[in-house]
Amino acid sequence: MTKRILLAAVAALALPLPALAQTHDAAALRDAALRDDVAWEVTEGLTTEVGQRLAATEAEARARAWAVKKLTALGFKNVHIETYKMPVWVRGEETAEVLGASAQKLAIAALGNSGSTGSRGIEAEVAFFPTLADLQAAPAEAVKGKIVFVSHAMTPTQDGSQYGAFGGARRAGPNLAATKGAAAILIRSIGTDHHRNPHTGVTNWAEGVKPIAAAALSLPDAEQLERLLKRGPVRLKLLVTPQFKGEAESGNVIADVPGSDPNAGIVLIGGHLDSWDLGTGAIDDASGVAITTAAAKRIMDAGQPRRTIRVVWFGAEEVGGFGGEAYAKAHAGERHVFASESDFGADRVWKFETNLPESAKPIGDRLATALAPLGISRGRGTAGGGTDVGPVLRSGVAGIDLDQSGLRYFDYHHTPDDTLDKIDPEQLRQNVAAWTALLAIVANAPEDIGKVTPAGH
Amino acid sequence: MTKRILLAAVAALALPLPALAQTHDAAALRDAALRDDVAWEVTEGLTTEVGQRLAATEAEARARAWAVKKLTALGFKNVHIETYKMPVWVRGEETAEVLGASAQKLAIAALGNSGSTGSRGIEAEVAFFPTLADLQAAPAEAVKGKIVFVSHAMTPTQDGSQYGAFGGARRAGPNLAATKGAAAILIRSIGTDHHRNPHTGVTNWAEGVKPIAAAALSLPDAEQLERLLKRGPVRLKLLVTPQFKGEAESGNVIADVPGSDPNAGIVLIGGHLDSWDLGTGAIDDASGVAITTAAAKRIMDAGQPRRTIRVVWFGAEEVGGFGGEAYAKAHAGERHVFASESDFGADRVWKFETNLPESAKPIGDRLATALAPLGISRGRGTAGGGTDVGPVLRSGVAGIDLDQSGLRYFDYHHTPDDTLDKIDPEQLRQNVAAWTALLAIVANAPEDIGKVTPAGH
Ligand SMILES: [Zn+2]
Ligand SMILES: [Zn+2]
Repeated sequence: MTKRILLAAVAALALPLPALAQTHDAAALRDAALRDDVAWEVTEGLTTEVGQRLAATEAEARARAWAVKKLTALGFKNVHIETYKMPVWVRGEETAEVLGASAQKLAIAALGNSGSTGSRGIEAEVAFFPTLADLQAAPAEAVKGKIVFVSHAMTPTQDGSQYGAFGGARRAGPNLAATKGAAAILIRSIGTDHHRNPHTGVTNWAEGVKPIAAAALSLPDAEQLERLLKRGPVRLKLLVTPQFKGEAESGNVIADVPGSDPNAGIVLIGGHLDSWDLGTGAIDDASGVAITTAAAKRIMDAGQPRRTIRVVWFGAEEVGGFGGEAYAKAHAGERHVFASESDFGADRVWKFETNLPESAKPIGDRLATALAPLGISRGRGTAGGGTDVGPVLRSGVAGIDLDQSGLRYFDYHHTPDDTLDKIDPEQLRQNVAAWTALLAIVANAPEDIGKVTPAGH
Repeated sequence: MTKRILLAAVAALALPLPALAQTHDAAALRDAALRDDVAWEVTEGLTTEVGQRLAATEAEARARAWAVKKLTALGFKNVHIETYKMPVWVRGEETAEVLGASAQKLAIAALGNSGSTGSRGIEAEVAFFPTLADLQAAPAEAVKGKIVFVSHAMTPTQDGSQYGAFGGARRAGPNLAATKGAAAILIRSIGTDHHRNPHTGVTNWAEGVKPIAAAALSLPDAEQLERLLKRGPVRLKLLVTPQFKGEAESGNVIADVPGSDPNAGIVLIGGHLDSWDLGTGAIDDASGVAITTAAAKRIMDAGQPRRTIRVVWFGAEEVGGFGGEAYAKAHAGERHVFASESDFGADRVWKFETNLPESAKPIGDRLATALAPLGISRGRGTAGGGTDVGPVLRSGVAGIDLDQSGLRYFDYHHTPDDTLDKIDPEQLRQNVAAWTALLAIVANAPEDIGKVTPAGH
């Protein structure tokens, strides 16, 4: 307490110190963060008091109000909301029934941006495609008027890479099925669990393509349907009635830890405040905003950093990255020198990747030393951020990714099961410790952090 | 194949051999059963082609027809259905919503025999009781007009004993809440998982008590409600609309392996054909009928046993044990000397319990020798069967329980997640091997198997 008061007094003098390195000992701050409670408080509070918070709905607005109150109470500066307009999609009824001798219900959830079957539903035969490539190769006559069912073989991976590799069934399958004249499409959930809880997630339609009903079967139900199809043709009754509700307001919540050197640029971090509507968005992404906020608070409480740390709780990530785009546009005039986000749950960070200019390379080496005691090693890739800070990174801003284990992430991702009990408090603290070390090093680095070539360019 | 034909020829001669011990080598049959496919075929077929099969519904009738076809194809004798009438209860709508500043939906499932809130639902404040004992101790004024919420602290146990210890919240909680004037009752699901899939199960009302709406919250939702209650009073909107539909037909499916010695008595085994309506009843109890049927077929295919082995696929176990009661009543005139059931999933058998008369004690010792290589040891309790063979056992019939591991059983029990993917084919085969050894020994035992004192008497 004494130390904190002294540092506040120093900060009040606003001396143009190049870096208060002595107050931001990365190793000591990292170790103290292993006893963090703030990240849990934020995760528990947001998921309990607000619950689900689908983009551009009343619940997301309640979440923004909650965020402003919380960030203010935690002592951040310049806490405010920046709004933008976006199209709203909301879930309706969703049921699927096998017809005939093996009559039974199947558990489904509409994909974000799904079209509707109309309130009376549709009945049609199933056309099965084991992979997206099989659907791609199929002639239109094999698809026309059918309920397309696309499967895949995703497995759990520590780096989460199979979400990219197999997620095409969800991202591209519906548009492809629609262009071939399908009546509707079901996909095997893009997930790795065996629970009757389907994985939703956004799908996208090409310009001019009329959305068809598009839903995910839970993994046990997808396997059930495959077993039934092995026995002969299957007819389904499908009722999926989501609605596009026009434009509505969403927003980002922004909070700063002001730096001592306005010329050193902004360090941008955060996660997303919105969630899918099925669960309470604990791993996706209450924990991400919680981890980055808790780490920033630890730096703030230890004394003023050289660079301003800006924590953004982005809105509307899930349904199309509207918050990240809006932030990048609104803040294009500011000098961002670093950006990073946390949006992959709260299991242990095991790897980090960097994208730093030559002049700032020592930052990566100092970080490697600081993270090693947490069981984190340097990867061979290039940091690329995610949907939220992606638009900023694409302008050539440097970044570092702290990669969490994805081994159980896709058991819960975008399902009703994304709830607080999936957060392991000890692993959450390890995340806060890693982020605290990262911020201590990056925000106070004496090196200039210049432009880089964005990942994938 | 040659061997089987030879044995069939021997059986056709119908020689009154006391026991074809040479053709029923328990160890050899046990080891061969570790390559069994029949149990998987039955489990897969029933759960895929029929799906859920709630007692006294059209789906349970389809399951009986499926059973007759399957048991006949497998070569059993005297395959037939015995029907009885019973009251039918069917699920309606079921939703729960937190009202006010933390507005959000909670996942619930009505308990079997739940009353209805009416189609407009009810709104009331929650009265929380951490345990059933707390509800018991509460004055009526703390309950009257409220939505009672009862929690508990069940944990996974290998012997499944905490289902008994903590299940009272479901079995007795609703009746107790109703007698104290509660508007409705929610319980923390009697389960051990953390998925948004509530555990249903039957509840019972004392004579003259008017059923109130009674539903289980999924475990994550129960914890969410507890967290909200720590912050202050909670009002809920509850809609639960199941219906009692009067009397309808259910039935048992019976199949025999005729024995060579009609005076040696019947060995009764089986499981239950009905399931709850939420899942496809794979662990509860397709696997039980499958395991006992596969084992009986192995004995049948190896030659005629001394005693008749009767396999019963009981109806309507879940909702009140109607099938077991009907069987005991209809077959009271026959000499049953042994009864045992499989109704605890398909994970490994790890323990067995016996209840044998003094004259038949050597059977237990021979069984211990035969089961040890499968990792099964003798317990210190007394065999008591379950709901299906319970009525027969209570008349003093001997029995042996093969106890499966319950460590993950209550993750899935009575939830939508009770599906085929929860069956581990290797553990299923270990069950068939244990049952095959049991039948080889019991059905051929030269000892007379007389009456015993039933467990708990
Ligand atoms: Zn996310
Ligand atoms: Zn059962």
